[in-house]
Amino acid sequence: MTFEEKLKTFRNHYATTQLLGGIQGLLGWDQMTYMPMGAMQSRGEQLQALGGILYDRATSPEYGQLIADLVAEIPDLNADEPVARELKLAKRNYEQSTKVPKEKMMELIMTTSVAQGVWQKAKEENDFAAFQPHLQKILELNLELVEYLKPYDHPYDALADQYEPGLKTAQVKAIFGALRPRQVELIQAISERPQPETDFLFQRYPIDLQRKVNRYFATKQGFDWNHGRLDESAHPFTTNFGMDDVRLTTNYDEFNAMDALFSTMHETGHGLYELGISKAYKGTTIGGTSSMALHESQSRLWENLVGRSKAFWSHFYPTLQAFFSENLANVSLNKFYKAINKVSPSLIRTEADEATYNLHIMLRFEIELGMIEGRMATKDLPEIWNEKMRDYLGVVPSNDTTGVLQDVHWSGGMIGYFPSYAIGNLIASQWWHQLLKDQPNTIDEIASGNLANILTWLRENVHQHGSRYDSMDLVQRVTGEPLNPDYYMNYLTEKYSEIYEL
Amino acid sequence: MTFEEKLKTFRNHYATTQLLGGIQGLLGWDQMTYMPMGAMQSRGEQLQALGGILYDRATSPEYGQLIADLVAEIPDLNADEPVARELKLAKRNYEQSTKVPKEKMMELIMTTSVAQGVWQKAKEENDFAAFQPHLQKILELNLELVEYLKPYDHPYDALADQYEPGLKTAQVKAIFGALRPRQVELIQAISERPQPETDFLFQRYPIDLQRKVNRYFATKQGFDWNHGRLDESAHPFTTNFGMDDVRLTTNYDEFNAMDALFSTMHETGHGLYELGISKAYKGTTIGGTSSMALHESQSRLWENLVGRSKAFWSHFYPTLQAFFSENLANVSLNKFYKAINKVSPSLIRTEADEATYNLHIMLRFEIELGMIEGRMATKDLPEIWNEKMRDYLGVVPSNDTTGVLQDVHWSGGMIGYFPSYAIGNLIASQWWHQLLKDQPNTIDEIASGNLANILTWLRENVHQHGSRYDSMDLVQRVTGEPLNPDYYMNYLTEKYSEIYEL
Repeated sequence: MTFEEKLKTFRNHYATTQLLGGIQGLLGWDQMTYMPMGAMQSRGEQLQALGGILYDRATSPEYGQLIADLVAEIPDLNADEPVARELKLAKRNYEQSTKVPKEKMMELIMTTSVAQGVWQKAKEENDFAAFQPHLQKILELNLELVEYLKPYDHPYDALADQYEPGLKTAQVKAIFGALRPRQVELIQAISERPQPETDFLFQRYPIDLQRKVNRYFATKQGFDWNHGRLDESAHPFTTNFGMDDVRLTTNYDEFNAMDALFSTMHETGHGLYELGISKAYKGTTIGGTSSMALHESQSRLWENLVGRSKAFWSHFYPTLQAFFSENLANVSLNKFYKAINKVSPSLIRTEADEATYNLHIMLRFEIELGMIEGRMATKDLPEIWNEKMRDYLGVVPSNDTTGVLQDVHWSGGMIGYFPSYAIGNLIASQWWHQLLKDQPNTIDEIASGNLANILTWLRENVHQHGSRYDSMDLVQRVTGEPLNPDYYMNYLTEKYSEIYEL
Repeated sequence: MTFEEKLKTFRNHYATTQLLGGIQGLLGWDQMTYMPMGAMQSRGEQLQALGGILYDRATSPEYGQLIADLVAEIPDLNADEPVARELKLAKRNYEQSTKVPKEKMMELIMTTSVAQGVWQKAKEENDFAAFQPHLQKILELNLELVEYLKPYDHPYDALADQYEPGLKTAQVKAIFGALRPRQVELIQAISERPQPETDFLFQRYPIDLQRKVNRYFATKQGFDWNHGRLDESAHPFTTNFGMDDVRLTTNYDEFNAMDALFSTMHETGHGLYELGISKAYKGTTIGGTSSMALHESQSRLWENLVGRSKAFWSHFYPTLQAFFSENLANVSLNKFYKAINKVSPSLIRTEADEATYNLHIMLRFEIELGMIEGRMATKDLPEIWNEKMRDYLGVVPSNDTTGVLQDVHWSGGMIGYFPSYAIGNLIASQWWHQLLKDQPNTIDEIASGNLANILTWLRENVHQHGSRYDSMDLVQRVTGEPLNPDYYMNYLTEKYSEIYEL
């Protein structure tokens, strides 16, 4: 076969695997949105059957040989050419996939498929003991995984690398170590100031109305309903089954309308990213995100830098008041803006304000590290969690439902994901700084309700590239410097100095 | 390998194929219920990718060899033993599957995937010309299919056999030929009698309320919500993704509440059947229905013999009145009962009354036969349709939306399915006759709101068996005689004689 023929065969193989991956996504989405509870058994079996096929395709020796043959003909895999990148990623994926034996991968699928149901029930019933053996099993499987994924500098690297290729534990420690005192100092300063009133946010907001509002704002962000949906699930998430089918979910609480709204803006940020990847990369290894931190940079940017900004509400608040006239008619813009930006140590990560959010991540990172390094036993996690909450945030959950059981990640086998959120926050601020430099009218545009140029900038600079560049490489290319947490801290300090008159 | 080992390998292979078939079902369900329109492209590609894998699994030479080896050790494939039946069906399926080349099967999947979208739009816009080239292509592919599926007595046999194994065109002609004059005679007699008033059925019935009502009655039928759902789609259907996950859909019309209600009772009948198949057959060739007519016998039994019966409404009408008090408070039970059983030639098959329903099927059967025998061209179908409507039912649609474009089947490639509905009606009446003989209290039980023993009888006699017996064989076993259309005609005549005082 010629190079071109081999390339075509390789691409066909990969594209079909991608399609099957999209189907896997649908199985997961359905499970979280519409599937009846009693169907867990067959859903688990289906995921296993498809997982087996996906494993076989991703690790087939013929496919590996094709990649090797093609790579041999590329002078420099790091060259700035799509085909080099495409093959570099294929090689990386193939090497990663073949390191883990099929039985182990299948065991992980089965274990997490069961664990997710158990966790959901355990969370509802505040029963950590019911979940603990499953978490233990997941931890053990992750420890085995780590061994297969050698070499690494730190075993946690091998896990984090699944979500953030190339991320090192040492780097996360360094970033978090530098951030923590600065964030704590800011929170301390804030805590000495009078707090805004927020009672009106926790009145009854009819869910039917919330549905309309969330749809309204996702539309304003530029979400394309012809290629996506917004559904409801216990925990908001975004998934996509192809470049033309992105599914967002949110979760409505009648007495906390802002929680759903900001969750939806967050998920819409993820969705816009997926829909913005260049169609030229369809079915190739470049046609998806290269990093979950990059993904989170999109969701957090829309949720916070846009969605919790003064400019945004200076335009949209009257609309929100019109939707929720019973609740907000007599609440001023300023009062509302301060309320949605109230900084207050709280129990739930997804509901945390911008100033305290990263502390929730640091806590989780330390616990994950403790588990992976064998310093923390799963059975002790509730106690450790609560201690760390006291230490980091000064609040202690009264039950595990709002404590160690709150997040879906571990039940899904995802140890090593959390740092992506915090790094996503940092990247978001760095994008924002660059965006304001490139498009100085942005704040004025937001204040007049025009969000289109934000999306245009993100598409141009971030979305379209898919996996064309590693995340840190893209940050450097777009902003002209490496990841710099100062943008994040400056953003927080400036914002809260104004709100809290620090 | 020993027989036992081979059996195990064979079963594993088949069970995995089944799981993938369940996933295919989910792709279809999602497409019809929640998928955004703009995702057609990737959905089509996903169905193709999965279809290819399913084809390869169903036709793999190793799998065929396994079946052949196992069959060789079974003294009598027609013996009344599950394992013999299991292998007989595996052999039959394998032979059928391997007759059609993969490219042809893939072409059919691609063609119908596109055609379904085109048909939906064409139906909305009353644009047969837009659909016609797709129908033509589907017809041509079906004609090719017929050639692959040789031998047959009549080419239509090969198509009908996909839905009703063993069904012969000659047999359908004979049944329809005998039925038609009797049904026409009954309709004629009815048409000479005064018609019941039905205006109150076509008032505004709020859809939110309809949703509650439909759920209420599906629950009364015994539908298990832990293993199923009721959603909405343009056309009601039932699908299942495993023995523990059955999805019903219905379609609400604000000005025709009874249409949705009877559709839901119909689909619930399908759903109860799927949920009633013995779990002992899980993952085997016996673990699904053996015939679509058998399936329709379940849906039509619940929709009509139960759902449109006097006993049923004598108990449930007050409940319905309570739900729809604005519409029905002043409508008597008798008036309601007569209205929902009004016999009147109409345009839409799915809304047809019991007396005229089969005429809709006969019309479609004749057109399908005409297409397959090359006597009717797809471009002439609107005209042919309208002529036959005049001939059969004395009414002529004013547009193709309510005429030749009304049914989903052809766009999905399903030529040869329609007879299953009519035969299903016949079987339903024969079950009913036997059920009343076995459980003489049935009518009294219905009249006291107790439907449980109907379900028990159906489970015991029909559902649990799955594909254990061919449909006609099961009819013989349960009722002690072959399919006998007299039960159906007697049921109709008796029912309408009373309603119309014939």
